[in-house]
Amino acid sequence: MIQVGTLVSILDLVGTFVFAISGASAAARQRLDVFGVLVVAFVAGNFGGITRDLLIGAVPPAALEDGRYLIVSLLAGMITFRWHALVEKLRHPVLIFDAMGLALFAVAGTQKALAFGLHPVMAALLGMLTGVGGGVMRDVLLNRVPAVLRADLYAVVALAGASVVVVGHWLHWLPTVSAIGGAGLCFLLRGLALRYDWHLPVAPGLAPDDGKDPDQNPG
Amino acid sequence: MIQVGTLVSILDLVGTFVFAISGASAAARQRLDVFGVLVVAFVAGNFGGITRDLLIGAVPPAALEDGRYLIVSLLAGMITFRWHALVEKLRHPVLIFDAMGLALFAVAGTQKALAFGLHPVMAALLGMLTGVGGGVMRDVLLNRVPAVLRADLYAVVALAGASVVVVGHWLHWLPTVSAIGGAGLCFLLRGLALRYDWHLPVAPGLAPDDGKDPDQNPG
Amino acid sequence: MIQVGTLVSILDLVGTFVFAISGASAAARQRLDVFGVLVVAFVAGNFGGITRDLLIGAVPPAALEDGRYLIVSLLAGMITFRWHALVEKLRHPVLIFDAMGLALFAVAGTQKALAFGLHPVMAALLGMLTGVGGGVMRDVLLNRVPAVLRADLYAVVALAGASVVVVGHWLHWLPTVSAIGGAGLCFLLRGLALRYDWHLPVAPGLAPDDGKDPDQNPG
Repeated sequence: MIQVGTLVSILDLVGTFVFAISGASAAARQRLDVFGVLVVAFVAGNFGGITRDLLIGAVPPAALEDGRYLIVSLLAGMITFRWHALVEKLRHPVLIFDAMGLALFAVAGTQKALAFGLHPVMAALLGMLTGVGGGVMRDVLLNRVPAVLRADLYAVVALAGASVVVVGHWLHWLPTVSAIGGAGLCFLLRGLALRYDWHLPVAPGLAPDDGKDPDQNPG
Repeated sequence: MIQVGTLVSILDLVGTFVFAISGASAAARQRLDVFGVLVVAFVAGNFGGITRDLLIGAVPPAALEDGRYLIVSLLAGMITFRWHALVEKLRHPVLIFDAMGLALFAVAGTQKALAFGLHPVMAALLGMLTGVGGGVMRDVLLNRVPAVLRADLYAVVALAGASVVVVGHWLHWLPTVSAIGGAGLCFLLRGLALRYDWHLPVAPGLAPDDGKDPDQNPG
Repeated sequence: MIQVGTLVSILDLVGTFVFAISGASAAARQRLDVFGVLVVAFVAGNFGGITRDLLIGAVPPAALEDGRYLIVSLLAGMITFRWHALVEKLRHPVLIFDAMGLALFAVAGTQKALAFGLHPVMAALLGMLTGVGGGVMRDVLLNRVPAVLRADLYAVVALAGASVVVVGHWLHWLPTVSAIGGAGLCFLLRGLALRYDWHLPVAPGLAPDDGKDPDQNPG
């Protein structure tokens, strides 16, 4: 029988793999060279966890100590680079894996922050950061406004999953129970958000976005 | 009577609040959703201090340990989101608060870096970074060249304020005295820069900026 | 006779100087003001090493502890700002110094990471990061996709040089020998890449880059 620790570890690597595919796919579409694609794959798969580890003082970050994260990221990057057109077609299945990755990262990130003694609210936010940080940095490197800040219900569902872990910690649930509960809620909400195209509101009274930045003064 | 420590703490939170408003306002203008607005508010209010804390080894950063920074940032973000048009109209009063925030962050950042044993020159630079870091990251997330690198006299006045703290440290002034002196100088210079529209020069012999980047090779 | 340690230290500062020139030059071309030019000069010269130091837990980073890095960076920035047109003309000689900087940073970064106990493969990647990190952050601040991710053979030659250091470490070579071997290989490969215009491939089956980002949805 597979142990719970092994299971979490496998799921964590699956999350890294799927996030790395999202990064590599976006990088290949912008015609970055093979090195750029691999870098963005690694960043998308690991930057959230690396940032969390820097903030809680866990250096060197796990992604630099455990070689499997590197191997999985490079593998995802190379597959995406080689079979770019095919990966694009698999976008819908990839979204499901991506939701899994988000759920797992949010839960694992929260548990690690709690283990390092952070306040529960901050731990939940760091769990969310673990889930969305890779995508944010992917978009910064590709020179665009991070999708998570403008697109749809993504970070909020990660926060919901992280909150379950925090509540479970507070109520002394078994870590496994709150992990499964949090990841399940996150995955479910993300699926619903995709299915019903849920969006968060933008500030009231603004004209539709014309893609220009009124603040950018070229003079 | 209010203690000096309490006063500094209040002023520090005021600085966070005002910087968070600047971030939320810019984010709302780019039609980020409510989550994006709150994230950019937190980043603008806290990224400078977080970066300073990472660089001097003060982990977890204060902004993640003291919940009031989070609360103040989210409050500023929500107010700006809800009453976006009103906040835009208050731009001039906001500039005054922003100058206050800059002065306080520069001084507090320098003192913290000195307390962690950094060389005085580096401490002054970290004080400046504390003051401008939030705005830099706000602009990176919103996909534009950081205003502080091109706009007007902003970082330099923070550095002037930070330098007073360093000189005071060297001459064994009371910390309160050099803090008030540094913050006062920074605030005064910033006010003058705004009033008289002071700018720093650009490199000689360049044609006016046409907003294009001659380096960006799309092929 | 010059000691090896002194030589490495001098070469390290030369690397910082040249990278700072590359940053200042790009910043001046975008008409950043003198402060912006100096900031981008410092970032281009030191961000790679600072990131490496944060990741391996060496805080405060060397670039903040040893004032010579700051002085050299500001000097490079001021020279470039003042004699911008001249520096532009010297682009070809600058490329040679840049290749030297890359070689030195890659080797020194790898050795530092090994000294902090990182796994050899990770140490080589951190060496590469030391070499390319400054240029990546320079481009992020100047709001463009990092050149190293799309342009030509740059990071890969840094990785080649770093790998020599790692292999030498494994085979118990003298550090000086593997440093000279690694830096030499990196410098040689970079020279060949420039001379023969070597590029890495982009993903197969993609239309030529039209400079647009198909993912950026302005609505």
